[in-house]
Amino acid sequence: MNELPSTDTGEAGESLPAYGFLGPEGTFAEAALLATLGTTPADPVPYADVSIALAAVRRGDVVGAMVPIENSVEGAVAATLDELASGDPLVIIREQHVVVDFALMSRPDISLQDVKRVATHPHAEAQCRRWLADNLPDSQFLPAASTAGAAAAVREPESGYDAAIASPLAARVYDLVILADHIADNPYAETRFVLVTKQRPPAPATGADKTTLALYIGQDHPGALLEILTEFAVRGINLTRIESRPTGGGIGDYSFSVDAEGHVDDARVGEALMGLRRVCADVRYLGSYPRVDAVRPSLRRGVSDADYSDAQAWLARVREGRR
Amino acid sequence: MNELPSTDTGEAGESLPAYGFLGPEGTFAEAALLATLGTTPADPVPYADVSIALAAVRRGDVVGAMVPIENSVEGAVAATLDELASGDPLVIIREQHVVVDFALMSRPDISLQDVKRVATHPHAEAQCRRWLADNLPDSQFLPAASTAGAAAAVREPESGYDAAIASPLAARVYDLVILADHIADNPYAETRFVLVTKQRPPAPATGADKTTLALYIGQDHPGALLEILTEFAVRGINLTRIESRPTGGGIGDYSFSVDAEGHVDDARVGEALMGLRRVCADVRYLGSYPRVDAVRPSLRRGVSDADYSDAQAWLARVREGRR
Amino acid sequence: MNELPSTDTGEAGESLPAYGFLGPEGTFAEAALLATLGTTPADPVPYADVSIALAAVRRGDVVGAMVPIENSVEGAVAATLDELASGDPLVIIREQHVVVDFALMSRPDISLQDVKRVATHPHAEAQCRRWLADNLPDSQFLPAASTAGAAAAVREPESGYDAAIASPLAARVYDLVILADHIADNPYAETRFVLVTKQRPPAPATGADKTTLALYIGQDHPGALLEILTEFAVRGINLTRIESRPTGGGIGDYSFSVDAEGHVDDARVGEALMGLRRVCADVRYLGSYPRVDAVRPSLRRGVSDADYSDAQAWLARVREGRR
Amino acid sequence: MNELPSTDTGEAGESLPAYGFLGPEGTFAEAALLATLGTTPADPVPYADVSIALAAVRRGDVVGAMVPIENSVEGAVAATLDELASGDPLVIIREQHVVVDFALMSRPDISLQDVKRVATHPHAEAQCRRWLADNLPDSQFLPAASTAGAAAAVREPESGYDAAIASPLAARVYDLVILADHIADNPYAETRFVLVTKQRPPAPATGADKTTLALYIGQDHPGALLEILTEFAVRGINLTRIESRPTGGGIGDYSFSVDAEGHVDDARVGEALMGLRRVCADVRYLGSYPRVDAVRPSLRRGVSDADYSDAQAWLARVREGRR
Repeated sequence: MNELPSTDTGEAGESLPAYGFLGPEGTFAEAALLATLGTTPADPVPYADVSIALAAVRRGDVVGAMVPIENSVEGAVAATLDELASGDPLVIIREQHVVVDFALMSRPDISLQDVKRVATHPHAEAQCRRWLADNLPDSQFLPAASTAGAAAAVREPESGYDAAIASPLAARVYDLVILADHIADNPYAETRFVLVTKQRPPAPATGADKTTLALYIGQDHPGALLEILTEFAVRGINLTRIESRPTGGGIGDYSFSVDAEGHVDDARVGEALMGLRRVCADVRYLGSYPRVDAVRPSLRRGVSDADYSDAQAWLARVREGRR
Repeated sequence: MNELPSTDTGEAGESLPAYGFLGPEGTFAEAALLATLGTTPADPVPYADVSIALAAVRRGDVVGAMVPIENSVEGAVAATLDELASGDPLVIIREQHVVVDFALMSRPDISLQDVKRVATHPHAEAQCRRWLADNLPDSQFLPAASTAGAAAAVREPESGYDAAIASPLAARVYDLVILADHIADNPYAETRFVLVTKQRPPAPATGADKTTLALYIGQDHPGALLEILTEFAVRGINLTRIESRPTGGGIGDYSFSVDAEGHVDDARVGEALMGLRRVCADVRYLGSYPRVDAVRPSLRRGVSDADYSDAQAWLARVREGRR
Repeated sequence: MNELPSTDTGEAGESLPAYGFLGPEGTFAEAALLATLGTTPADPVPYADVSIALAAVRRGDVVGAMVPIENSVEGAVAATLDELASGDPLVIIREQHVVVDFALMSRPDISLQDVKRVATHPHAEAQCRRWLADNLPDSQFLPAASTAGAAAAVREPESGYDAAIASPLAARVYDLVILADHIADNPYAETRFVLVTKQRPPAPATGADKTTLALYIGQDHPGALLEILTEFAVRGINLTRIESRPTGGGIGDYSFSVDAEGHVDDARVGEALMGLRRVCADVRYLGSYPRVDAVRPSLRRGVSDADYSDAQAWLARVREGRR
Repeated sequence: MNELPSTDTGEAGESLPAYGFLGPEGTFAEAALLATLGTTPADPVPYADVSIALAAVRRGDVVGAMVPIENSVEGAVAATLDELASGDPLVIIREQHVVVDFALMSRPDISLQDVKRVATHPHAEAQCRRWLADNLPDSQFLPAASTAGAAAAVREPESGYDAAIASPLAARVYDLVILADHIADNPYAETRFVLVTKQRPPAPATGADKTTLALYIGQDHPGALLEILTEFAVRGINLTRIESRPTGGGIGDYSFSVDAEGHVDDARVGEALMGLRRVCADVRYLGSYPRVDAVRPSLRRGVSDADYSDAQAWLARVREGRR
């Protein structure tokens, strides 16, 4: 996929670092990275958490990192939103959806009826709770820092874990046997991952793009949110995600994290961004990138680039006193 | 007033025609023209009605014409709005408010108690009806095509008119004696006149300007008007006048005639005009000109030209991948 | 048409007066009244102007009066809007559209080539100007207070008028010969008339109704009009007419005259009216009445009376702590 | 605080169960419960997670449960939002803000320099990461299912943990020594907790209230969110929180979780709720309750209960044909 930043050679010809991901090996984030790159990348680098992964991007240790941003069961991944919203500018260049397909896995000598102590990340435990109640009612949940970390640990009998809940990829990576698969209570749950790089110009618009923004309001006045949304609506732009985000002071001091349909190079998106820049205390642009589902927006009349060009030319004529 | 089109020499050096006005001599329109020009113009040309006056402008017979557009008692002057909204493009370059100060006037040999037959324009009669009922209860109203026309006619005893209701200027022009002054039922009534020329670039913005537009909606769908108003509101632009105008087909097929605060060269007005151009079936620009009351708009944050420039520069940086 | 107020017997059994109309006999207003009543009314009363006609309604001299409110060529009829907007409350109970079909008419001894002096109302002259220029280029226009008044006068040779421009009905009423018919420059021009009575409960909703309102804003702040329109839009109500109306002080102090789709008894219209009452300085209800074109609004989801009832019942349950 | 549901006697006089909270003992949730009840409650019941706590409320095992809903660092607590948004109806009856004041704690025989292995919940580790890097750079993080669980475990030397990061309350509950206090990287971080009961009528409005809702849109059309927000804005209601929430299908199928200023018994809130009920696919009411910060909304004109009553009375008069 040649539009992605190359990891082979940098601008000055030097060798560039690999991609990173939220590790350890075998996470859904690694699966998302493989799916996005389309090939097995050279030496992807696992990072212990989102902050560390994005700090590595900022330092240039890796050219980009794949991190989760949103989960259809758990909601927004706050760490990712907040890392993007502060510090040196980063941008999203790709998104990827991964079905959260959990499996119960263990060492070859363990069978399902032996399982008493199940390790996994608390979020994964929450998503398999009904299955655990129905199939392993007497088991004990042992929290781990990640699902892949639980899988790595369960390889060692001295971990005290009988099994781990993790992705099928983790079973492959850590050479484990799957005792039960598709155990998530909601079989349609998926996680949205984003590939993040240092600020750089966006890839050209594809016609099916998203733009991610962090919007800060000066003070929380009635109608502030409506004002923000009107800047999008008046240009025919739909939002696919919005969250009010605490700004780190007390509860009640908010910014908004949004995904908008369209690309920063689209005339309508550019005008909306300028409008937001004018009415918001601050606007942070976090990237325009192709939608992984390739869904094109249904544009209402008057908001295409051609409509904008025509209007611009007409205004120029009017200002010059021509027809 | 050197910003106004000169009537002395044209672009190619030829002699230019004078200004016209809604006549005959002595109308409030002539008073408005004198007040706007600041000096007695050379040979202003009276025209019998608004259509004729504006046709003369279109043909180049006069450099501009002063016509009424709005009356604080009678409302919009439909003939003016409709002439502006069709045909070769015209623009408003000045506005003037004239207090509608009616007087009863006649020949020197007539006294108030002699007055039985009062000639005037039907609108003027309507505006003095209470005074007539109180002071001349037995008088008869005779319609005339204009107040000044009534004044002109009353000079001749054979007109059969005993007195005319017209402007004090008309008494001076037609050498009549004022029998009663300030007789309008509403002493605050005023008429707004506009000075109309062929399409030309607007005078520079003064900071206290108005822009007049005719807006055509493609079909009358619920929310069409709200959509139009939102184009103004999202850029912080207030309207000072709006009328739905029948488009000449049946009742119910409408356009809108509006006056907006601001100048076509203001960034916010330009963006609003482009937005209207994109969502309306047609937009007709009818001029930006200084407000005669010099009232500056109270701008909300983010809508000044400086705010627009800043936002434009920021967007350019974002699109280039810079901070 | 038994839903209309009877002119035979009043509430207490006394004999009630007839209907009035903007006279004199033979006006389009009389034509509108005949079309609305469906039968020849007993002794309809012509009035010299709209104010006099509506004052007669207020006094109870007539049970109602037919007056023009809007003309597809000339726009709003200010006198009607302003009489409705002040004084003792009146309401519109019916509307009627009359095609403005002008004819040139005269005494039997006059032929078209004899016509030199044409009498009519200035508005009618304006609407037949092209025809006059093409067919009677040398004729002189003599203003009259109404088209029917011109027709009445032309019967008398001593009037000095050779012909009148008026409605075909006027030719019948005044026993004149039509020299040329369908002479209006715009053959589709029509005038909208309304039948006005003292305030009374509206006729039941038909599903294709209009409601007329006068809306006063406290002070002219940016967004005031948007606020008003949002009260309609949020309840899915379309407007079919809007005019900013000077409130009689100086230019710039405005109210709005609007026609909205729907009936005051519709839940959505009632809620919108309450909303307007809360945000406006004043709201004057001017009647709900069946649309003469019987066009039903295309309602978006959630705004029918059934939707309102459901929501009301649900809120009651919620407030009581039930599901 | 006598407005809270009593845990002593039920409606029928039977003994009622105690309150629950997100346990184990010593959590910030327990601190929030104590602060809300004002006294030490009789036997509060710790629950292992939010789902279990709210299931206990639904079953009637406890009269209510205190659970986290929003964290100024981590954002919304998805488990709580989602449990509230489905299943048998629950309502929030109180909110509480607790400053997230973390301390490092251990057994009396451990000093700060001994600490190598630190147990805590992953979210707490994230919030103390800078402190850990600066003060215990060589320490290892061991995930626990809760901060209080880590504190409970650290009492036992055989846990292998040298210290826990938890609330000061946990140190008291588990008889631990505080090695360092105020170690959160953001000293202003706080968590918002809510006290949840079965559906019941709300406590009377205090004038400083919030109402929590889950709003479902039928399908994700452009403008759906603007439509929802307009229902609030047109009635002058500000939102203090909004999140788009995946509905459990794929990413992109959303509902909205919002907190609005005001009480369901306020006229403006009631009307807004009915409006939402009409335009949304579904509305789930999740309680009206006093704001813990007692901040009263700044109401714009026209939205008080008195304004609503006046408008209602006026509409009734209008519909009856009275003034």
